[in-house]
Amino acid sequence: MITLHYSNAMTSFVGPEGLTDEALQGAIVRTGPLCERVAKERAAGKYPFADLPYAEEAIAKVERFAEERRAAFRNIVHLGIGGSALGPLALQSALRPRFYNMLGVKDREFCPRVFFLDNVDPEETRELLEFCAPKETLYHIVTKSGETVETVAAFMLAIDRLKRAAGDKFREHVVVTTGARGLLRSWADREKVATFDIPEGVGGRFSVFTPVGLLPAALMGVPLRQLMSGAEMVDAVCMRIDPKTNVAYLLALVAYLLDTSRRKTMHVVMPYARALRDVADWFRQLWAESLGKKHSVDGKVVMVGPTPVLALGATDQHSQIQLYTEGPNNKFVLFMAPDKWRHDETLPEGLLPELSWLAGKKLSELLEAERAGTEASLTSAGRPNAFLELQDLSPRSIGGLLHLLEMATVFAGHLYNVNPFDQPGVEHGKKAAFALLGRKGYEELRTKLESGRRDRTKYVVK
Amino acid sequence: MITLHYSNAMTSFVGPEGLTDEALQGAIVRTGPLCERVAKERAAGKYPFADLPYAEEAIAKVERFAEERRAAFRNIVHLGIGGSALGPLALQSALRPRFYNMLGVKDREFCPRVFFLDNVDPEETRELLEFCAPKETLYHIVTKSGETVETVAAFMLAIDRLKRAAGDKFREHVVVTTGARGLLRSWADREKVATFDIPEGVGGRFSVFTPVGLLPAALMGVPLRQLMSGAEMVDAVCMRIDPKTNVAYLLALVAYLLDTSRRKTMHVVMPYARALRDVADWFRQLWAESLGKKHSVDGKVVMVGPTPVLALGATDQHSQIQLYTEGPNNKFVLFMAPDKWRHDETLPEGLLPELSWLAGKKLSELLEAERAGTEASLTSAGRPNAFLELQDLSPRSIGGLLHLLEMATVFAGHLYNVNPFDQPGVEHGKKAAFALLGRKGYEELRTKLESGRRDRTKYVVK
Repeated sequence: MITLHYSNAMTSFVGPEGLTDEALQGAIVRTGPLCERVAKERAAGKYPFADLPYAEEAIAKVERFAEERRAAFRNIVHLGIGGSALGPLALQSALRPRFYNMLGVKDREFCPRVFFLDNVDPEETRELLEFCAPKETLYHIVTKSGETVETVAAFMLAIDRLKRAAGDKFREHVVVTTGARGLLRSWADREKVATFDIPEGVGGRFSVFTPVGLLPAALMGVPLRQLMSGAEMVDAVCMRIDPKTNVAYLLALVAYLLDTSRRKTMHVVMPYARALRDVADWFRQLWAESLGKKHSVDGKVVMVGPTPVLALGATDQHSQIQLYTEGPNNKFVLFMAPDKWRHDETLPEGLLPELSWLAGKKLSELLEAERAGTEASLTSAGRPNAFLELQDLSPRSIGGLLHLLEMATVFAGHLYNVNPFDQPGVEHGKKAAFALLGRKGYEELRTKLESGRRDRTKYVVK
Repeated sequence: MITLHYSNAMTSFVGPEGLTDEALQGAIVRTGPLCERVAKERAAGKYPFADLPYAEEAIAKVERFAEERRAAFRNIVHLGIGGSALGPLALQSALRPRFYNMLGVKDREFCPRVFFLDNVDPEETRELLEFCAPKETLYHIVTKSGETVETVAAFMLAIDRLKRAAGDKFREHVVVTTGARGLLRSWADREKVATFDIPEGVGGRFSVFTPVGLLPAALMGVPLRQLMSGAEMVDAVCMRIDPKTNVAYLLALVAYLLDTSRRKTMHVVMPYARALRDVADWFRQLWAESLGKKHSVDGKVVMVGPTPVLALGATDQHSQIQLYTEGPNNKFVLFMAPDKWRHDETLPEGLLPELSWLAGKKLSELLEAERAGTEASLTSAGRPNAFLELQDLSPRSIGGLLHLLEMATVFAGHLYNVNPFDQPGVEHGKKAAFALLGRKGYEELRTKLESGRRDRTKYVVK
């Protein structure tokens, strides 16, 4: 279903900035036992996210809810940020038409429009909440901790509008997906609104196959079983004990070696398919937040982590490829594209004689030629790259791709020797924001921050 | 109108990974004369893009066309890629409501919906062309060379559909913006369709103030004179001969010094405003394609260029900030945000006692606290950053911001000693794509590429 082509990461194809056979084989000998280790840890329950595709009961509950409620609402407004939004956004982009929310109800197969509010931008928030009339809207409120400040703020605004419009019936317009504890959980229990669980041990960025991602997907008509069957198929590939056949491990290894031994500190993910753009954006969080760490698992200061960069083919050929081809050789480019498309266009004859060479070609051929042309150009400029080829853009293949990238992240965590499941570095900024907002308990930090802010007038120009 | 705060790029605030006063002052002494040089070159006509805000006649022509045609169409479909799309996309995001294309015609002030087709994705292309009925649509076809293959392919498909729907009246549904020569120019002249000019000497990525950007902007009701008045005001700032007061020069200098003397090879642009997201994406092309160069102006192999990375606040705090704070110290983060918003939301009282500390706060306060919290967190982790503060999100301020960033790119070109106006590195990939498509004249390259492709089976895993 998914093929990794990594010739162009090897010196024999890309020259000295690639990996030698010896280096790769040596690394496989050293780190290949990871495959068996991960399979064992998995069996011991260490990766709860990887069991999600098999959670029949949880999936059935989501499907039932979606079937019962789908027809009652014109809009779903999904409130969540980071891992609580990127997964379902990726599913919408990948598996629904480009203008899904603008289509008529019939072309949407009688499913509701789905909007995401993943920020506290005052203008965007107001425009979205005004655009979706509360009486026609189901609000899906998603926060693992139950206390994420951005989501809680949006929740306050949405519920306030909703109560004014629907009175006591507001309960029918709300569904909460959250962890076992926290503010939203107790609110939902007390108010008796519908809830879904984010299982213990599944972090936000690995939650796409919990109701975080599955509920919006089901509401917009994505067939969950097909999605899950793809994840299951790819799961078998990721559990292969032979490192030379384990796609997730090899992808992680090539990326890791290019970063640490060839200084390809940026990992550019470049899908040639609009449908995969937000999958790449979801992966951007997964890769950055899982691997970007100050401390190794044994407590040493390491400050590691590749920087994921998102580029979209062919569009970004006209924006970033000049730099990637001619600038510093500090990137590993990972192309992604499907082999088969859901529909295609054939370029017509007869418009202009100068264009006869294009007539009769399919757009998919043109796009693939552009991808292969960019690949050839990067390779001849000595810039390592690889290609993750998807069979098609079916729910099954998308489910498989998401699972593969999650497992590749686990392998990369082991290779970098960091914990891929925590994010200690975001706490300081969060506390600083609380302090600046005058929250109780943060007075000391506030005083410190404000004194720091006062003497900044020297380096200002306008 | 625009203020640059760069304290946190200085060692006295951020520690050893920042710039010392001595280093900055020394660099100003060495490179400050650039300000006078650029002003002189400007006067000598070397920067035609910078004169665009003053091109009264061209602007008036765009305004007349938009006023005459606006009411006749439900949709504008803009066909263009790279510099032919990123400018008008930025103007739409910055200056129209978030759901502009979904609003009713009255809420759009009787202006048409505007869609951008900036790729040759077969699914996206078909879905867009089907969504916009040809009889209700004006197609704006934009290519500087007149031969950009992606735009030409979309043009073939659009005109084919349009001719089938509108027959000989197709001419009324097409407007072409292109250079003095090329395929599209001769086609438009022969078919007598309306045309606009991209002036000689203005490259695609500097073309936002030509009809490339101004025509779609005018069609969606953006007041061009206000946009231009902002550019003119900021132009005066960028022409200041005293380097210590020239905002564009100082922005370029700080970014350049952090890259070349502190290895901050990634320049993260992080707007805290959804409205500025696509301005940052437009800047991503400007910075990457202008500065990412193999050769210096004197022909030496230099392979320079910072990599622009786009992050959106507060959303990407939950995706990238873990890496930026704890990972390798190899980034310069440039925040952008407005001081005043066009509208705001106040968090309501009474929902939950635990949230009383948030009640009464404005969303704009919350967002600014998050920005300042992230800034404090990066700074205390020793990561250099700066803040480009906009007075507001008016057309005037947006016009000023775009002009400032263009001029900063010119200054950065001088500092890196590269030509910011060419893009020699994209030719190879383009030719390779032609060869793979079987275009005449590229047979030899095709043979070479295909032989390279045949022996790739060794490094494949699935």
